[in-house]
Amino acid sequence: MSDLRIAVLGVGMMGADHVARIAGRISNARVAVVNDYLSERAEEIAASVPGARVVGDPLDAIADPDVDAVVLATPGPTHEKQLLACLEHGKPVLCEKPLTTDVETSLAVVKREAELGKKMIQVGFMRRFDHEYAQLKALIDGGEFGEPLMLHCAHRNPAVPPSFDSAMVVRDSLVHEVDVTRFLFGEEIASIQIIMPAPNPAAPQGLADPQLAIMRTESGKLVDVELFVTTGVAYEVRTELVGEKGSAMIGLDVGLVRKGAPGTWGGRITPGFRERFGQAYDTEFQRWVDAVRNGENVDGPDAWDGYAAAAVCEAGVESLHSGRPVEVQIVDPDSIKGFRK
Amino acid sequence: MSDLRIAVLGVGMMGADHVARIAGRISNARVAVVNDYLSERAEEIAASVPGARVVGDPLDAIADPDVDAVVLATPGPTHEKQLLACLEHGKPVLCEKPLTTDVETSLAVVKREAELGKKMIQVGFMRRFDHEYAQLKALIDGGEFGEPLMLHCAHRNPAVPPSFDSAMVVRDSLVHEVDVTRFLFGEEIASIQIIMPAPNPAAPQGLADPQLAIMRTESGKLVDVELFVTTGVAYEVRTELVGEKGSAMIGLDVGLVRKGAPGTWGGRITPGFRERFGQAYDTEFQRWVDAVRNGENVDGPDAWDGYAAAAVCEAGVESLHSGRPVEVQIVDPDSIKGFRK
Amino acid sequence: MSDLRIAVLGVGMMGADHVARIAGRISNARVAVVNDYLSERAEEIAASVPGARVVGDPLDAIADPDVDAVVLATPGPTHEKQLLACLEHGKPVLCEKPLTTDVETSLAVVKREAELGKKMIQVGFMRRFDHEYAQLKALIDGGEFGEPLMLHCAHRNPAVPPSFDSAMVVRDSLVHEVDVTRFLFGEEIASIQIIMPAPNPAAPQGLADPQLAIMRTESGKLVDVELFVTTGVAYEVRTELVGEKGSAMIGLDVGLVRKGAPGTWGGRITPGFRERFGQAYDTEFQRWVDAVRNGENVDGPDAWDGYAAAAVCEAGVESLHSGRPVEVQIVDPDSIKGFRK
Amino acid sequence: MSDLRIAVLGVGMMGADHVARIAGRISNARVAVVNDYLSERAEEIAASVPGARVVGDPLDAIADPDVDAVVLATPGPTHEKQLLACLEHGKPVLCEKPLTTDVETSLAVVKREAELGKKMIQVGFMRRFDHEYAQLKALIDGGEFGEPLMLHCAHRNPAVPPSFDSAMVVRDSLVHEVDVTRFLFGEEIASIQIIMPAPNPAAPQGLADPQLAIMRTESGKLVDVELFVTTGVAYEVRTELVGEKGSAMIGLDVGLVRKGAPGTWGGRITPGFRERFGQAYDTEFQRWVDAVRNGENVDGPDAWDGYAAAAVCEAGVESLHSGRPVEVQIVDPDSIKGFRK
Repeated sequence: MSDLRIAVLGVGMMGADHVARIAGRISNARVAVVNDYLSERAEEIAASVPGARVVGDPLDAIADPDVDAVVLATPGPTHEKQLLACLEHGKPVLCEKPLTTDVETSLAVVKREAELGKKMIQVGFMRRFDHEYAQLKALIDGGEFGEPLMLHCAHRNPAVPPSFDSAMVVRDSLVHEVDVTRFLFGEEIASIQIIMPAPNPAAPQGLADPQLAIMRTESGKLVDVELFVTTGVAYEVRTELVGEKGSAMIGLDVGLVRKGAPGTWGGRITPGFRERFGQAYDTEFQRWVDAVRNGENVDGPDAWDGYAAAAVCEAGVESLHSGRPVEVQIVDPDSIKGFRK
Repeated sequence: MSDLRIAVLGVGMMGADHVARIAGRISNARVAVVNDYLSERAEEIAASVPGARVVGDPLDAIADPDVDAVVLATPGPTHEKQLLACLEHGKPVLCEKPLTTDVETSLAVVKREAELGKKMIQVGFMRRFDHEYAQLKALIDGGEFGEPLMLHCAHRNPAVPPSFDSAMVVRDSLVHEVDVTRFLFGEEIASIQIIMPAPNPAAPQGLADPQLAIMRTESGKLVDVELFVTTGVAYEVRTELVGEKGSAMIGLDVGLVRKGAPGTWGGRITPGFRERFGQAYDTEFQRWVDAVRNGENVDGPDAWDGYAAAAVCEAGVESLHSGRPVEVQIVDPDSIKGFRK
Repeated sequence: MSDLRIAVLGVGMMGADHVARIAGRISNARVAVVNDYLSERAEEIAASVPGARVVGDPLDAIADPDVDAVVLATPGPTHEKQLLACLEHGKPVLCEKPLTTDVETSLAVVKREAELGKKMIQVGFMRRFDHEYAQLKALIDGGEFGEPLMLHCAHRNPAVPPSFDSAMVVRDSLVHEVDVTRFLFGEEIASIQIIMPAPNPAAPQGLADPQLAIMRTESGKLVDVELFVTTGVAYEVRTELVGEKGSAMIGLDVGLVRKGAPGTWGGRITPGFRERFGQAYDTEFQRWVDAVRNGENVDGPDAWDGYAAAAVCEAGVESLHSGRPVEVQIVDPDSIKGFRK
Repeated sequence: MSDLRIAVLGVGMMGADHVARIAGRISNARVAVVNDYLSERAEEIAASVPGARVVGDPLDAIADPDVDAVVLATPGPTHEKQLLACLEHGKPVLCEKPLTTDVETSLAVVKREAELGKKMIQVGFMRRFDHEYAQLKALIDGGEFGEPLMLHCAHRNPAVPPSFDSAMVVRDSLVHEVDVTRFLFGEEIASIQIIMPAPNPAAPQGLADPQLAIMRTESGKLVDVELFVTTGVAYEVRTELVGEKGSAMIGLDVGLVRKGAPGTWGGRITPGFRERFGQAYDTEFQRWVDAVRNGENVDGPDAWDGYAAAAVCEAGVESLHSGRPVEVQIVDPDSIKGFRK
């Protein structure tokens, strides 16, 4: 089966990230087409990926026969038209949030997809794929903590661009917690209230920051969200689930921490070497593949490292038997003809 | 540039992991050839990867013109011969530890590679690619903690197979800390001592477990390693660096924790959304690519999720202006013709 | 200067704790008088403390010339009368919360004390004396985190008695966060809202649990408090301060954890042996004093422990010079005439 | 029963701490006599404690009929003579480490006490009274982790006085881990080895720092101790117990953290308000007693704080019923005649 040929529409910061992701870290896919309303930008990004070409019109890119699927990272106002084009051409599309910029057009897109009878749209709420959110979801679904009751969330950015306004705090930041709530609780949100404390003195004039959002789901679960986009600290996203029989917090930079009967707090130890070093193996292989493919020297441990380890282990086994310190015997590398470190 | 065509030799547990890794998570590479001394096993694994075929003899696999590079996951005693074949054919090889099973043959491999004048061998000490070890290395190289003085390590397995003996604790477990020491300190190990406490009552008769290894580097840095392979708990690998101006520990399941002047402990907050959610984006894309390629329904957030988020945010913005709770208006999904959740 | 002679009024669970505290852990004070509306209970508690006697009427206890100060642990409805009596007799009083059971009588007590021109009443909001709250207060007052903006609090009990009702969640639990807010922010609370999610299925019928309280101070700082009294887990009290330049959380069972620029999280290492082992020294001395006073054998480390330590250290110093393992020489304790461990 | 009358011999830094401890934090005891070889220092310290007087000769202080018990904080070389005097006079003595400065005199003291047939000496190994070590001891004795196998310890000081030499690292620092080992394992130490890495460049010339001590107990348990007294960071004392069925670490500034089956790490939540706020209650009472006794204004929450809390709670209960935000009604404090904050 050949690689999935993807058109990436919109290659600003986010779209360019996705191009690099597909080209360098995603298996079985390649960037076939790049499009941006700034043609120079499109050319620049396409040039960075072997086999990618620019198509100047987004609808042409969608319709292109050499495109199997579409990634939409264009500005929100263009989404409706582009999504509908994807639907008409039967092209699966991964659409960065928002789906569209208002409720009516979003509903129109939902309806058209339903009429066509095939799910073709995925929205880029990436937190569902984060391993900590996945753990939280599994904890809820496993039933161990009983009925989920509340979420306490914090969404903090160190800074935002000057153009960021109070409504964008809701539309661009809170929207993630909206999806997290719906994902974790599996039900719709019935009402929402935004409460504004005295603003952060360091926030730009006119920006309501921080905000406290209170959401209530259909069955009465409560979610409170601190939204604070001018902290000056770092990117912090935290979610605490409060359940009938325990609570769990993610986003503390220490893994999922849970509290439960019999009065203990803590986390899970990574159970095996695959979980502990899976990322390391992937990185090792990707870097080795990239170096070999480019004809570069690999920069990982080399034969000398393997030899040195063997020498130490041999001495170690000798010490295991004798109980005494043992000198390690390693040849002088300069004595090896042609050796370069 | 086309994908790197890899021969995987030895597809036991580890080799099979590597086959799945290359096929499903590594970009720009594919498994071209599979080899195993058990031909049925080789067939089974090859069948799981489109485009892979079995080659019955490992040396033939190495020599195969459709093979650009080799992954060696065969038993240690076969490594010497296979590595030398890779060298002769100029095939870059990623060799699972050990390089070879004794010091003399390891040195012979080093010498042959040096004679040929080109680095072609990488050894699978994957910890160098783990992000926590990389952070520790960066901390040392950055000089912030001054001169590194000591490492305290623990290497714990919940259990080992019945065949595991006292020397394998050194050769298979300690070997990783040997490489970690050489990697972090950038110098050779000069002597080693294995000290044995009273054995764990739960360890198999005859297995010296736990062990305490004391290694000293050329410049006099000390490394102590607890080796304990029958803990019954989990896979735990921990390394603490003690430097002139501070200390740092990894492997506590809470990220790198450092202690330093002015008397504080703690870690770094993931600085941005790329670091915090990079894994989520990668997973999102890989799963979307795989689903689309296989003609399956994507299982991520769909158009309805995008619509529902829009409806909540619209109500949120209204509350932002009014300060009051606002009901969220969502249409009945059953009213949408053809809609399926 | 002689010990402060205290009358403890009300010796239920809380008052009895205070009697034991004064008798066994507080220096320069003693329990002179015990009073309870259950005379048998008063006798029982008084009998546990040398030098304490029962006085049957609380107002007589307050007036008693051998009483210098009063601790009030009686039921709330009796507080007003007893506090006014303390004021009339000029007896300083430490009054367990609530001051009185309603706003009018509380104000009447405030007014009477003001008329008399001397502060004589302290209310038992003990969190102000907790070292973690003190650290949070110092952090705010130090100005390092700039303007304080919000508090996120959680107040969780594993269970409450059957008589506990929804209003008691506010009056008995939330009241602590009310005082914490006023203490940390140094201003009054201007408004409050209680929001109720769907109740915990495990909570008694009719009890609104959990609750979410939203308080706003005069200057517009926001405080949200999760109140949850049927968690089944443990006693959890957590407070997170969000400031202009950083945030800090206490009550995680790991000390105060702060986040701030430059994007780090963590805590303070106990800076010296006094802070690290101050509690140990106090406990050591109190237990030694109590044992010696009662003519009991002390149970701390004895002369043999001192001797054994000397023997090990002597061998250690020898190893320091020789670099070799040294056997420790300890005499057979049975060879010592009269020796008992 | 009257207070225990204590003579404190030696009022340098440590002895002066103990005088303040007995006078201000220990119940049922008082400092009756102060002695120091610097008479001015003795006078100064005695003057800080009501009822204490100076006795110029340490043996006279021990013999004094108004002295019930002795605290020895004099230099080590004087201990033997003073301890023997305590024994002869039948005075219980709490002796700061070391018992004496060499093994022979320590043994002589042990023998004399044994001859007299009564335990009168306690040595100041205060860690046995630290709540974290007590938890570790309870964990071992409870048997939950099976047979204890090893301890990994670190003992770090930010700095030491210029007079501190390599042997003092053993005698003054390691000695605590010697006692901890004997306390936790309940057996004697059979051998010891000191290993010296390349010294810390920041350590004074000639000081072997850091050191690594390896101790083996009679039954073969191993203890390794990092001794590092010029870290520049803080006072760090850490102990990790490795047992047959789990491990636990204290001294991380986050409470006791344990790892065990089924592959989890974590700690215990403080189970109730007594454990969580016991220190706060004690501090509250001691500070209130001290203020009242000295005729000072108490600085804890006052009647106004009680009134303000009542006003907020009343509004909270109203909101509980209405579900709406409720304004808090608080009178203007300036309207209260005579009111002072």
